Amino acid sequence: MQAAIAYEPQGQVVIEEVDLSKPATGEVLVKLMASGVCHSDWHILKGEWGTQLFPLILGHEGAGIVEQVGEGVRNVKAGDHVILSWRTNCGICEACQKGWPVLCYKSPTVSSKAVKHGSDQTFGKAGSLGTFAEYALVPEVAAVPIDPVIPFAQASLVGCGVTTGVGAAINTAKVQPGSTVAVFGCGGVGLNVIQGARLANASQIIAVDMLDNKLEMSKKFGATDLVNASKGDPVEQIMGLTGGLGVHYAFEAIGLVPEPFLQSILCTRKRGLTVWVGHAPLNTPVTIDARALMQEKMVMGSLYGSARPQIEFPRLLKLYQEGKLMLDELITNEYPLSGANEAFAALGRGEVARSVLNLN
Amino acid sequence: MQAAIAYEPQGQVVIEEVDLSKPATGEVLVKLMASGVCHSDWHILKGEWGTQLFPLILGHEGAGIVEQVGEGVRNVKAGDHVILSWRTNCGICEACQKGWPVLCYKSPTVSSKAVKHGSDQTFGKAGSLGTFAEYALVPEVAAVPIDPVIPFAQASLVGCGVTTGVGAAINTAKVQPGSTVAVFGCGGVGLNVIQGARLANASQIIAVDMLDNKLEMSKKFGATDLVNASKGDPVEQIMGLTGGLGVHYAFEAIGLVPEPFLQSILCTRKRGLTVWVGHAPLNTPVTIDARALMQEKMVMGSLYGSARPQIEFPRLLKLYQEGKLMLDELITNEYPLSGANEAFAALGRGEVARSVLNLN
Repeated sequence: MQAAIAYEPQGQVVIEEVDLSKPATGEVLVKLMASGVCHSDWHILKGEWGTQLFPLILGHEGAGIVEQVGEGVRNVKAGDHVILSWRTNCGICEACQKGWPVLCYKSPTVSSKAVKHGSDQTFGKAGSLGTFAEYALVPEVAAVPIDPVIPFAQASLVGCGVTTGVGAAINTAKVQPGSTVAVFGCGGVGLNVIQGARLANASQIIAVDMLDNKLEMSKKFGATDLVNASKGDPVEQIMGLTGGLGVHYAFEAIGLVPEPFLQSILCTRKRGLTVWVGHAPLNTPVTIDARALMQEKMVMGSLYGSARPQIEFPRLLKLYQEGKLMLDELITNEYPLSGANEAFAALGRGEVARSVLNLN
Repeated sequence: MQAAIAYEPQGQVVIEEVDLSKPATGEVLVKLMASGVCHSDWHILKGEWGTQLFPLILGHEGAGIVEQVGEGVRNVKAGDHVILSWRTNCGICEACQKGWPVLCYKSPTVSSKAVKHGSDQTFGKAGSLGTFAEYALVPEVAAVPIDPVIPFAQASLVGCGVTTGVGAAINTAKVQPGSTVAVFGCGGVGLNVIQGARLANASQIIAVDMLDNKLEMSKKFGATDLVNASKGDPVEQIMGLTGGLGVHYAFEAIGLVPEPFLQSILCTRKRGLTVWVGHAPLNTPVTIDARALMQEKMVMGSLYGSARPQIEFPRLLKLYQEGKLMLDELITNEYPLSGANEAFAALGRGEVARSVLNLN
């Protein structure tokens, strides 16, 4: 099969022939139809998450059709449409039994590696998936069956960005109706935090970004107030918009630099909850005052939107079918697999919410 | 009346004659019988919380007998034994209505000031109370009636340190039976976090301190494991004691330097909760990695043990009467008001859990 390989942290992929094994016991081979191009792939490709990951097949936001299942697979069969989850879970460990599958201590992985065709070089896979490819081999639990009427491009985005963003609002933070919310960053994840807050019926949703085109787009997803952080301290602007009290919930959905991590704490009110969604480059230091949380403020991380993928993906698609969750509007460009570098370039220019690669 | 005044951030108080007004509408005059000597008074006296507080009457951990009530006071009458709360609440604001009275946005205060006898110099009061004195004038809500069989010295400690520590465990963190806990700092507050975790039936309670005498004392309050942080990285030691996973709950109860604030985050497991109890000196920077919370770890501040003082003080005293809460063991020294400087000196030497001043 064809796959987009990152060999070095240089910001470019190459398309090569790669071999996958047939599914072993408990494994599923999926013919990929679409993959979103997530900012995390871009971070990885630039080496911001470390060089130990190279070489690897990029992509972790995929949807497709089950091609073949290994022995013992019960939850899906050939022909099923699925979204792939980049976190698998064992069902047995403390995190799994507490209902936190994406925090599983013993995530199952497939038994074989992806190998360069005609060679013995093996490749890692972004999110253990590698969805910038024509096929993916995954443990059964990573393949979440969905209604086949859903278009693959839209479905693929639920595999990471939508779940991460909407989930941060409705699962991690459990945003309450009538509350006030600030979202730092209006990219692919931030827009979904905003629509998560809208789904939860927050009354005030303050979008914060440096780019006016992104702020403008955030209105479509539910933002009620816009703060351009390049035009004055965003914390002060948020205080001004909330009668000097601050917001009930703040979300960091950028993950590039320390400042918004700190600002997302400073802009909340007493007992306010800050949720860090962005995955910062390794060793990004955030300095906070030891008294910053004294008024019982809370800060927590959100991983994959605190999702239970087998429940979350169908739930989000149901909201899409009911017209309540916006997915079509997230897709700004579509490319073939060979357009992966072009998709990254557009991401780097801050142009798009989401590019999608059409794979088969 | 006599009161212990701090004029300058020099670590010494002077005993002087001070006048209080008669109670106005909604106010209560309390004849103080005992006051704990809390580390916070020591921080204030050294100027670590800023010089804007001076001059003031120190002390915020007091118990006594209602001497006189102003018009409209319904909840207490002359002769009632009371513990004073250093946070008052209006009952009307968002924080009050949500059940967070110690976070009240509009804390009522008394209408008159404490004045130096024969002069017009006025004094602030630590925690709006000033319990290093023979009397205190407070809003009705700050006087919490208690069972008169409770000795005043023991009762006074419930006014701050016990509630702050036990409350951080049972109210803020809601420690679960069978869980694992680490407590940084075994002073007056830390020992109470430890016994709070014991009251909640935590299975493993790891006490962390630099002083062996404090660690030894922590065993009496419920610590199951001792970590001397001066003998190797406490985070590694805690990981070793928890099978490499980390604890479910960690508490910072020192409030002097940045390191334990950070360590209290690093030593928790996935979705672990860190509670910052210590009130650090102004501008104490804690630098954490933006990825430190990625496994959905949580950090929150605890103020006054997230207490509802009118409910909490009687509840804690009931546990004391049932033999479940240790108060007698916290009191290591008793002094008259004139011994305040001696009490601080003992605190500075790390000698005591709690000194108590006997005031009338």
